[in-house]
Amino acid sequence: MQSTYPAAPELAITRWFNTAGNPSLANLRGEVVVIEAFQMLCPGCVSHGLPQAKRIQLVFGNDVAVLGLHCVFEHHEAMTPVSLEAFLHEYRITFPVGVDAHQDGVTLPITMGRYQLQGTPSLVVIDRAGRIRLNVFGQVDDLSVGAALARLIDEPRPEPEAGCRRDGGCAVPTEASDA
Amino acid sequence: MQSTYPAAPELAITRWFNTAGNPSLANLRGEVVVIEAFQMLCPGCVSHGLPQAKRIQLVFGNDVAVLGLHCVFEHHEAMTPVSLEAFLHEYRITFPVGVDAHQDGVTLPITMGRYQLQGTPSLVVIDRAGRIRLNVFGQVDDLSVGAALARLIDEPRPEPEAGCRRDGGCAVPTEASDA
Amino acid sequence: MQSTYPAAPELAITRWFNTAGNPSLANLRGEVVVIEAFQMLCPGCVSHGLPQAKRIQLVFGNDVAVLGLHCVFEHHEAMTPVSLEAFLHEYRITFPVGVDAHQDGVTLPITMGRYQLQGTPSLVVIDRAGRIRLNVFGQVDDLSVGAALARLIDEPRPEPEAGCRRDGGCAVPTEASDA
Amino acid sequence: MQSTYPAAPELAITRWFNTAGNPSLANLRGEVVVIEAFQMLCPGCVSHGLPQAKRIQLVFGNDVAVLGLHCVFEHHEAMTPVSLEAFLHEYRITFPVGVDAHQDGVTLPITMGRYQLQGTPSLVVIDRAGRIRLNVFGQVDDLSVGAALARLIDEPRPEPEAGCRRDGGCAVPTEASDA
Repeated sequence: MQSTYPAAPELAITRWFNTAGNPSLANLRGEVVVIEAFQMLCPGCVSHGLPQAKRIQLVFGNDVAVLGLHCVFEHHEAMTPVSLEAFLHEYRITFPVGVDAHQDGVTLPITMGRYQLQGTPSLVVIDRAGRIRLNVFGQVDDLSVGAALARLIDEPRPEPEAGCRRDGGCAVPTEASDA
Repeated sequence: MQSTYPAAPELAITRWFNTAGNPSLANLRGEVVVIEAFQMLCPGCVSHGLPQAKRIQLVFGNDVAVLGLHCVFEHHEAMTPVSLEAFLHEYRITFPVGVDAHQDGVTLPITMGRYQLQGTPSLVVIDRAGRIRLNVFGQVDDLSVGAALARLIDEPRPEPEAGCRRDGGCAVPTEASDA
Repeated sequence: MQSTYPAAPELAITRWFNTAGNPSLANLRGEVVVIEAFQMLCPGCVSHGLPQAKRIQLVFGNDVAVLGLHCVFEHHEAMTPVSLEAFLHEYRITFPVGVDAHQDGVTLPITMGRYQLQGTPSLVVIDRAGRIRLNVFGQVDDLSVGAALARLIDEPRPEPEAGCRRDGGCAVPTEASDA
Repeated sequence: MQSTYPAAPELAITRWFNTAGNPSLANLRGEVVVIEAFQMLCPGCVSHGLPQAKRIQLVFGNDVAVLGLHCVFEHHEAMTPVSLEAFLHEYRITFPVGVDAHQDGVTLPITMGRYQLQGTPSLVVIDRAGRIRLNVFGQVDDLSVGAALARLIDEPRPEPEAGCRRDGGCAVPTEASDA
């Protein structure tokens, strides 16, 4: 029944800030992932979306993985990684932020297109099984977001699929190992 | 294990507003109950507590029962039911609000004492089994409240106890009837 | 030319709070007077009008005389002086507040009628010569209020009229005494 | 007596936005000039300083000349004119904004140094005679700003100095021409 939720497409990132690693949804499988899609010069992102993402990070801590997605679809030359880096510093944003990749000649960045985002800010929430459970453009109230996250946090971690994962680990079939 | 949560004491109310009925926790057993304890002349209640209760009512609708508890522990003569009625009208508060009862010569009202509230505003949340799960004085953020409510809403309704309840209904023992 | 401004009618007050005296516009002649007309159960007064009056008191200090006017025109029994006194204490209002008097059988209080106030909150500003220079219902921005007050503060105090005033003082005609 | 106010140094601007002209304090002599000194990636400028400048523009209209001064003293490469242009567009800033010039190898821009600004946002107000009357770093309340501007607006325009000005106009000596 829950299999009707769409699978979350992988992120296409050219550069990460606030992390030495290279986060991917594949690596984060099993976690509840919150993606705050924003542009640094988008007033609604600065006044609403990013502060909400910071509150989520503060309230839910390690129970969710908060990621920023800088998906520039206008004023490209005005919101370069150099400008973004200063922006993240000045606005005290400490969660990992990835720069959405562009295909040559296409205005809309790749990840933004994959998720069919309608604009910025958008809030995307992905469950432990890697499925999109929330994808909202604009403002969404904290009570609703808190409720949605709690429910996803409480869902069981999916059993690893038998066979070998892309990170090299190989799982044997299990029977209700974490029931 | 969950039995360690304290049972929610019954409310002691002298008069209800915004309802023709006479709500009691006994009648509400099985529901998630949110109690906003306030005083009409408490600035923090007007600026934070009551607006949050209205948002809870709006976002969670029939999934929770929101009740106001007017627990006057100072300026008693200034916050009479007559004044409260005008206040509720002017501030567009539509959920049921009960006036906490007083014992002769005791400043603190009865329900406030039973719940050991530290002041107003206080937010009390009671689970479907009639146990106190949240009891916070002051401000609590919407993300946390939303998460707490979602988890309580998702808990199963307790099976009615065999025997006759105070409302006259008699239940036969059941075996995993709503599992 | 400026004589076209209407003379400010005297206040009709049954009781004052926050002052041992009995302020009147006659006594305040020569001062810039700011009157914040409010009702304690009016949400716009609590969220906008009264905080603005407190800011005026803070910023302009002795350069203006801030007065509150509690002009109850609805829910009369809910906003008695007893309730008002607790309200002023809880909301930390320290400027003098007068209770607008009522004529038997008339809903609108007397001062409110004299000033033809359209509702609460209303901001009335009276110049040093006792004339109404601002009379606004609803919200008015701080920049405009600050500008208006500065201009009135900078107007010269009117020379006392020759003859005896109602407070018993008698002035002799002066010639450009404070030019 | 008023001659103790310091003369406002001329602006050093490399590029203007939102104007086809080339504003200078010399040209604006006779006007009340409000300078909002900001950096586009300064959170306090975005949340407080620039909105206040927009309110000043709205409330005082042609009675004051509002100018923005983009004085970048950190993250220089992140706040280029290209980024600023997009910022002004997204934040709906319509008053003229000049980019403060830099001297080679000096971090602090030239105008910022001339005015000894302590940081951003700073609000500078210049009177009709070209003197600095307000120079505040950080937040300043609207009531105070409104009062200050009203007083400067009401000051008489200075008589043109006898002799020839830099714009080519030549004034003859006058005697109390606009008293």
